[in-house]
Amino acid sequence: MCQLLGMSANAPTDICFSWTGLMFRGGQTGPHKDGWGIAFYEGKGLREFRDPNPSATSEIARFISQYPIKSRTVISHIRQANVGDISLENTHPFIRELGGYYWCFAHNGQLKSYQDLPLGRFRPVGETDSEHAFCWLLEDVASGCNDFSSLECLGGRLYRNCLELTSRGVFNMLFTNSEYLFAYCSTKLHWITRQAPFGCASLEDGEIRVNFEEHTNPTDKVTMIVTEPLTVDEEWRQMRPGELIAFRDGEVAARWYEEGAVKLADT
Amino acid sequence: MCQLLGMSANAPTDICFSWTGLMFRGGQTGPHKDGWGIAFYEGKGLREFRDPNPSATSEIARFISQYPIKSRTVISHIRQANVGDISLENTHPFIRELGGYYWCFAHNGQLKSYQDLPLGRFRPVGETDSEHAFCWLLEDVASGCNDFSSLECLGGRLYRNCLELTSRGVFNMLFTNSEYLFAYCSTKLHWITRQAPFGCASLEDGEIRVNFEEHTNPTDKVTMIVTEPLTVDEEWRQMRPGELIAFRDGEVAARWYEEGAVKLADT
Repeated sequence: MCQLLGMSANAPTDICFSWTGLMFRGGQTGPHKDGWGIAFYEGKGLREFRDPNPSATSEIARFISQYPIKSRTVISHIRQANVGDISLENTHPFIRELGGYYWCFAHNGQLKSYQDLPLGRFRPVGETDSEHAFCWLLEDVASGCNDFSSLECLGGRLYRNCLELTSRGVFNMLFTNSEYLFAYCSTKLHWITRQAPFGCASLEDGEIRVNFEEHTNPTDKVTMIVTEPLTVDEEWRQMRPGELIAFRDGEVAARWYEEGAVKLADT
Repeated sequence: MCQLLGMSANAPTDICFSWTGLMFRGGQTGPHKDGWGIAFYEGKGLREFRDPNPSATSEIARFISQYPIKSRTVISHIRQANVGDISLENTHPFIRELGGYYWCFAHNGQLKSYQDLPLGRFRPVGETDSEHAFCWLLEDVASGCNDFSSLECLGGRLYRNCLELTSRGVFNMLFTNSEYLFAYCSTKLHWITRQAPFGCASLEDGEIRVNFEEHTNPTDKVTMIVTEPLTVDEEWRQMRPGELIAFRDGEVAARWYEEGAVKLADT
């Protein structure tokens, strides 16, 4: 299995603290040593870093942990390979362009019989079940949504398709078009929103403590979504299996739980 | 204007020496300070680094100059903005997936009236003439080639389209599907193939000298393609305006010069 990390914020925020915690799990405090990747949006632009080497010992990963890149939307992943070799093309997150936007996706879990999910214009470059699922999800957005920034269309289609994927295995995912960060929980995902009054937090995986007040403005809202909580002294919320949440600007914009039930801005 | 750097090699080779020379031109020995990017293929996988900051002072650029990533196909670009703001989404190289391969492109020059070049499934994320041209070129490959690895189809279509783009302005470009690295010269491109017996070379832009023999095997063939020669003590070949060359494994695989004239393996 793998571990996911996502961030949605209302102001450009660096992710060095959280990334450092996740990084240690890639071969040091955790077994997820089969590559890693992280994608940062800056406006419509996207930059990514990835490596098939373990994040705990990757020089690129260490560089990122010390080089603050400010972003409002981030997706990261550390891999423990099941389907597909350890190689650059099998590292998450996966990225495609659709409609003049970069779309980005990472997956935790394992799918059975994913090969029959029909593909269109988007094709996997690597061999993972994850990339195949992403191509399938994105084709459905491309063919089903006239407005690629419509929360209702994106969320509704994603939710239905996530249920389908869950019937084929474990499917926890992060998916974004830069504006909305969608998190779907099949078995395990946690999240937390940090906002004023900001406190301190200590990493689960290293002797590192941060006082968020020293690094934020009073209006900042930053939501982190992770497979396993990254800190020991904060209250993380656990997503329910079968739940899809759309985050925007660090807040819950919508959630889907029962078929067809869309509750906007319901935290 | 901008500067291009490409590499095609028959064995995984690091590009630290050449990248260091190009990097200095991004705000130190040259005016190309409006962002930079570099993409490395490893098998079918691709990793990229990019920054809207000047390469000469970018911490990420310096990291890459000291961290050897071994690749057989590389495209890099330092930008001097003309069309489009200085932003992450306007940095080259541009990347899209087609047919299960990552395609990568960078452009030196400026096009007039590029907006009427018709687009299909690929859309620009930023505002540059370059990305628009790439989307147009790739759509033509997608719709016109049954076999995306056919040198004849790729090269023939690219060549015809490069002539069209040249009629709209200056269009020097690098374009690759990982296997073939296409270089088209509208006004200025130089290249060199390094192979045994390997010698020494000194950067044009910094007090750095390398003995390639210490870093290579006798069977290595490494071709570099650049806007302006990077070294002072090697003989770079100048491409002719209107010439398209396809490099593969560090060698010339084909070239197109006069309409319809395809000469395979003619150096």
